[in-house]
Amino acid sequence: MERTLIDNIGKSEGKEVNIYGRALNVRELGEIVFVQVQDYSGTIQCVFEKKTEIKTGDAVEITGRAKKEERAKGGYEVHATSEKIISTSTEDLPIDLSKSELKLQLETLLNLRALSLRHPKVQAIFKLFDIVLKSYSTVMRELGFTEIKTPKLLSAASEGGADFFKVDYFEKSAYLAQSPQFYKQIMVGSFERVFEVGPVFRAEPHFTTRHVNEYISLDAEMGFIKDYKDVTRTLNDVLIKMFKIINSESKLYMETYSVKPVKVPEEIPYIKLAEAKKIIKEKYDYDVPKTTDIDPEGERLICRYAKEEFDSDFIFVTHYPWDHRPFYTMPDKENPGETYGFDLLFRGVELVTGSQRIHDYKMLIENMKKKGLKSEGMEFYLETFKFAMPPHGGWAIGCERLVQLTLGLKSVKEATLFPRDVKRLSP
Amino acid sequence: MERTLIDNIGKSEGKEVNIYGRALNVRELGEIVFVQVQDYSGTIQCVFEKKTEIKTGDAVEITGRAKKEERAKGGYEVHATSEKIISTSTEDLPIDLSKSELKLQLETLLNLRALSLRHPKVQAIFKLFDIVLKSYSTVMRELGFTEIKTPKLLSAASEGGADFFKVDYFEKSAYLAQSPQFYKQIMVGSFERVFEVGPVFRAEPHFTTRHVNEYISLDAEMGFIKDYKDVTRTLNDVLIKMFKIINSESKLYMETYSVKPVKVPEEIPYIKLAEAKKIIKEKYDYDVPKTTDIDPEGERLICRYAKEEFDSDFIFVTHYPWDHRPFYTMPDKENPGETYGFDLLFRGVELVTGSQRIHDYKMLIENMKKKGLKSEGMEFYLETFKFAMPPHGGWAIGCERLVQLTLGLKSVKEATLFPRDVKRLSP
Repeated sequence: MERTLIDNIGKSEGKEVNIYGRALNVRELGEIVFVQVQDYSGTIQCVFEKKTEIKTGDAVEITGRAKKEERAKGGYEVHATSEKIISTSTEDLPIDLSKSELKLQLETLLNLRALSLRHPKVQAIFKLFDIVLKSYSTVMRELGFTEIKTPKLLSAASEGGADFFKVDYFEKSAYLAQSPQFYKQIMVGSFERVFEVGPVFRAEPHFTTRHVNEYISLDAEMGFIKDYKDVTRTLNDVLIKMFKIINSESKLYMETYSVKPVKVPEEIPYIKLAEAKKIIKEKYDYDVPKTTDIDPEGERLICRYAKEEFDSDFIFVTHYPWDHRPFYTMPDKENPGETYGFDLLFRGVELVTGSQRIHDYKMLIENMKKKGLKSEGMEFYLETFKFAMPPHGGWAIGCERLVQLTLGLKSVKEATLFPRDVKRLSP
Repeated sequence: MERTLIDNIGKSEGKEVNIYGRALNVRELGEIVFVQVQDYSGTIQCVFEKKTEIKTGDAVEITGRAKKEERAKGGYEVHATSEKIISTSTEDLPIDLSKSELKLQLETLLNLRALSLRHPKVQAIFKLFDIVLKSYSTVMRELGFTEIKTPKLLSAASEGGADFFKVDYFEKSAYLAQSPQFYKQIMVGSFERVFEVGPVFRAEPHFTTRHVNEYISLDAEMGFIKDYKDVTRTLNDVLIKMFKIINSESKLYMETYSVKPVKVPEEIPYIKLAEAKKIIKEKYDYDVPKTTDIDPEGERLICRYAKEEFDSDFIFVTHYPWDHRPFYTMPDKENPGETYGFDLLFRGVELVTGSQRIHDYKMLIENMKKKGLKSEGMEFYLETFKFAMPPHGGWAIGCERLVQLTLGLKSVKEATLFPRDVKRLSP
């Protein structure tokens, strides 16, 4: 008998259907047994008017009649006539997947990832992740960006040298890409607008709720800009279009976390970093530590200000100091101590980093020298700027953070399928 | 003045337009200068009735009147009234981008990648690559697959141990993922159908036209299959749907390489490997070397057979020997020396590898031991099979090979933006 997808059961009302899936939940109520079954298309309740051997977690095949049932979630249920256990657990499940909340410590949740991912509330996170990926590439293509895939193995730890993972590469050493920065810039010379979705690797020994050492970066780079605001405005537009898709297609997953659709303002407010620091000192009596450009508490307060002042979950912080930005960042024409580098903060956390880049060869070399950097391993990148690079800029969105902040998850690791940190390389 | 995208010039016929882009080509014809300009939306001819300083390769802004011109490619041209050189080369371009063919040695083409990528014929390869990426995720979502992003840093060099790149990971060692194999299988337990688009890393010291050490793998894994043919049939369907998109949206790029649309048969022919070897011996008098399951010449001849016998560019070769397939491959029930592992060959080359996997815990452990493998570093993977994994299988498509074979390129490196091989880590 042909398989019926759970999502299509409505079309077979009154008819016999054959479904395959996982038993999420088995409840006995007197003579009747209710089995909640999930396949890749959806979830449905199967009703047995007899005992069944099916246990929570089993992979099953169930034959029965599709019936309308207004009290059921999807409007239908299956009155089972026969069942087959395709695969069962050889040990008791270490977690109770039938509860509505898993309530596990983060470490346990991650150690048991293969199983905790079977819980609908955990699944919801990665269904939303899927939609975020889809929305980004859909919107970027709509705006004329070409998708590129650049190498993650580099010959040199450029941009400074710290925070890179070293790789044994045949007789040589290689380094894992911290970002597709150089490559996406080069590609502006060819396609003008490019985007990439790929892993980036950061060897920073963080122990926070907002960092992992490997994550998915949603990158973009665009040419023929007039100034950095062409970049921020495009990003603003991208986010509006992305969240239109996410809010509509992730409704169910957002409801699971009792969060509202994300509102992206038509014009996200802007503030210069120096001004932002003044405001959080005056308004919230907080001093950003002198050793950083901005710290997490500072970011949280800037976002509080954006919410209070502009009713916005987003705010662009611009004009980051030259000292704290990479050598390719365009300095502010009027105030070279500052740059056309920006961050986009979302609900208290940095979500995006971007900037206008330097496109003039001489200026780039000078800026590199001022930073005390050597050109070794960057020759191919620097050389490109001898050949008519247009003014350009771009951004990198942290995909896991976007998911985390959208659902209000405590740690970015909850929004990472198999997170990597200083201590964790497995599962 | 607002920028007009080249693709939209037709809508501004007779009006003044302001275009930005790169001068691909500058030709003087007496008093008249023709400048071919490209932006991210398209290419157009600009006509100057005076001298201009614009050189091939410059980034320019041109103002002029949009005119209908039937002899022009897109049906329009711009009669320039003023121009601005936004960015120019500080050195002569080392390659002539205005020629219709670059005619460079592969090494030169790759060494000068940042510039060779500006040539329309090279661009065409990566515009098609972009469409391949788009088509894969579009089709996979249509078929109910969830997109996942799994870690590229692993705690152990599993599946044997050779061919892995080693990474210094804080105080420990990590390894770069050869494939998302274990993770995508685990995820079948959660989402039933998953796909991934991501880099994979192979430390094989190849020197061939069909290998690179880092490439993009189009992975998939699906649950509740009856046998491996559920996997191959789904793959067949995916390829039909993908090439429907590719053939239609890459028409221009395929014409650039004088290749025809790719025909994917409704039912790609199947052949068992043992039988295929017999046929190529009998028909083409070729003996596959005993040390391999099949060699490149053998693959070429099987494809020749598929073309001659079935008029097909594709052929499934199934039942690869147990000796040559990874431990998680499902052995053939009737003949355990063979497996339900398959390759899909396309125009003479292996394009896809896949199989039905073992989903039974005991069988998996036994098979692992028979292969002489240890469970170290694979515990999280193996443990999952204690918990009711459904029968499943999947595949991995080599994205660069698909592009290479579609366009008939000599080397897979031509279809890789910045290829990595034993000798090449840069650009």
